[in-house]
Amino acid sequence: MSSKYETLVIGAGGIGAVVAYGIHYTGKSNLGIVVRGHYDKLISEGYTIDSVDYGKVDGWKPDYLYPSIEEAGKSGIEYDFVVVSTKNLPDIEKVEDLIEPVVTPSKTAVVLVQNGFDIGRPLIERFPQNIIISGVSHCGSHKYGTLVEHIQHDNAKISYFGNPNFEESALEQKTKEFISMYKNPKNDIDYFPNERWYRYRKLVYNATLNTVCALTDVDTGRLQLWGGLDEISVPAMREIVAIAKADGCDLPSDVINIVGHGDDGVYFVPSMLDDVRKGNPIELEIILGNVLRVADQLAVDAPILKVLYALLKLKQGRLKEKRGLLTVPETRPPNTKYYS
Amino acid sequence: MSSKYETLVIGAGGIGAVVAYGIHYTGKSNLGIVVRGHYDKLISEGYTIDSVDYGKVDGWKPDYLYPSIEEAGKSGIEYDFVVVSTKNLPDIEKVEDLIEPVVTPSKTAVVLVQNGFDIGRPLIERFPQNIIISGVSHCGSHKYGTLVEHIQHDNAKISYFGNPNFEESALEQKTKEFISMYKNPKNDIDYFPNERWYRYRKLVYNATLNTVCALTDVDTGRLQLWGGLDEISVPAMREIVAIAKADGCDLPSDVINIVGHGDDGVYFVPSMLDDVRKGNPIELEIILGNVLRVADQLAVDAPILKVLYALLKLKQGRLKEKRGLLTVPETRPPNTKYYS
Repeated sequence: MSSKYETLVIGAGGIGAVVAYGIHYTGKSNLGIVVRGHYDKLISEGYTIDSVDYGKVDGWKPDYLYPSIEEAGKSGIEYDFVVVSTKNLPDIEKVEDLIEPVVTPSKTAVVLVQNGFDIGRPLIERFPQNIIISGVSHCGSHKYGTLVEHIQHDNAKISYFGNPNFEESALEQKTKEFISMYKNPKNDIDYFPNERWYRYRKLVYNATLNTVCALTDVDTGRLQLWGGLDEISVPAMREIVAIAKADGCDLPSDVINIVGHGDDGVYFVPSMLDDVRKGNPIELEIILGNVLRVADQLAVDAPILKVLYALLKLKQGRLKEKRGLLTVPETRPPNTKYYS
Repeated sequence: MSSKYETLVIGAGGIGAVVAYGIHYTGKSNLGIVVRGHYDKLISEGYTIDSVDYGKVDGWKPDYLYPSIEEAGKSGIEYDFVVVSTKNLPDIEKVEDLIEPVVTPSKTAVVLVQNGFDIGRPLIERFPQNIIISGVSHCGSHKYGTLVEHIQHDNAKISYFGNPNFEESALEQKTKEFISMYKNPKNDIDYFPNERWYRYRKLVYNATLNTVCALTDVDTGRLQLWGGLDEISVPAMREIVAIAKADGCDLPSDVINIVGHGDDGVYFVPSMLDDVRKGNPIELEIILGNVLRVADQLAVDAPILKVLYALLKLKQGRLKEKRGLLTVPETRPPNTKYYS
């Protein structure tokens, strides 16, 4: 290993740009970023960052910029860390397909700074000899073109996804290496020993408020005022708590109360509703589909979440169709099924 | 009673206009219509009707036109029949409040040519000495200004709502009087002995496909192609069938198959989705709320329908808010509830 790590960040939206800048700030890694838009402007002018943690930064450029993952793969660099902070939409594009060109077997650790539950599994299946790391970010940041507006302190919990091909100690050591390369005096990047527990904890909100708001076009304030928190989201939270428990993750006894009050005082638009309002596909599979597949394996009942999932699959179909990602035949095909 | 009946039609949209013209055609009643828009133009030019049943009719006027129900009430006429074909939105405006000025106690029969279930109950409570009649229309017709495009044969089932203050024979006789005044060689207006059964039969579609399509922005073709018919609507149909059975209404054993195939071959946009797309409030209470209140009374489980209802109440809140019918406080109010 050279004196510096080699790191590639894929999906430098608001959060990804802050992660990249945090790694740059720490100075322990050469850093490449794969950008999807504004490549030429970034090559000439760099990023403008207005950050709650790092202040105003003009014209910042990482060591390398790539217009695509394929180009990053052709660089010849064998990455120590590939950080993925794209939206996680396996029904449209699988992360394990996306990153294939930049993963060196037995070397590259892949860090998923993404929403959702059980997102490590398909990567471990595809890259069984690579360590997969979980990053749950509580940072708030938005990107507009080459401008990054970082408005909420960078604060993340980093864990490893369990992988039977490695000793736990090796997984833990690699995870802490990643933290040492990212953690700096301006951010709070901490090791958390149980990714699954932490991601169940986040689902208590995301699977129950985020989903209902996305279906009904209400923010979390209206959700509560108009009865939906009591009638749907809180009963759905109990289902998440039960699935987690059956999976060996005991959530705190007051978790439902804490999540129920998490947005007190504000009419908050959660991410899935924000996506629906923008006409973007929603992160449905990783927020709801994956946990329901685990519930089925564990034979835990989740009747409300199942209805929400079935409804949101339809909504997702419509969102994809409007983006040209899905079509239906011009004439409705014959249907010979007998319904009873 | 004079040689002719006195009839008033309230809510002359597409269907109401066809009902009114059918009554006119039969010639047994003086006829008034309460219009909500285009009053001056109708007074001077009348309706233009392009009808699958009656052909082209230019400049048709009923005996009386009123700009409001209050004006119709001031006419001094004691109506034999008041036909209501407005949307039924009790969470916004109750039919029993709306028609109060034109109902003569112990005389006027009120005919509800409207969607939904258990819609007679609040009228019988308000007007216990009046007969309330049920009309379920299968007519297809749209109104644009003063133009009526009647595209699907006028075909309706007429029944009475049970009322303990009357002999069944009196209810039946009045209902058949109404039919005799409306049925003509061009339409198919038939007596049906059990309004509750017939309205449960319609709910098998309306409570299960209409609702899911409205929530997810898909038509009934996409609903089937993308799995929602199997995963939500058909299981929800079983809940309607169970509620109906507990209420003494046995639906045919193949009703779910028939309804599941009801829109075969077309990508059909059901009424509630059409309302959502137009930003109109939805007929939620009469399509879903009323039947769930009956299910509670009968202690029949309806878990899927209950989730759909809770979600659609939120959607309805949003639709009302966008129409200025509902507001939320500018600052989200404190919430002291403990969630567990």
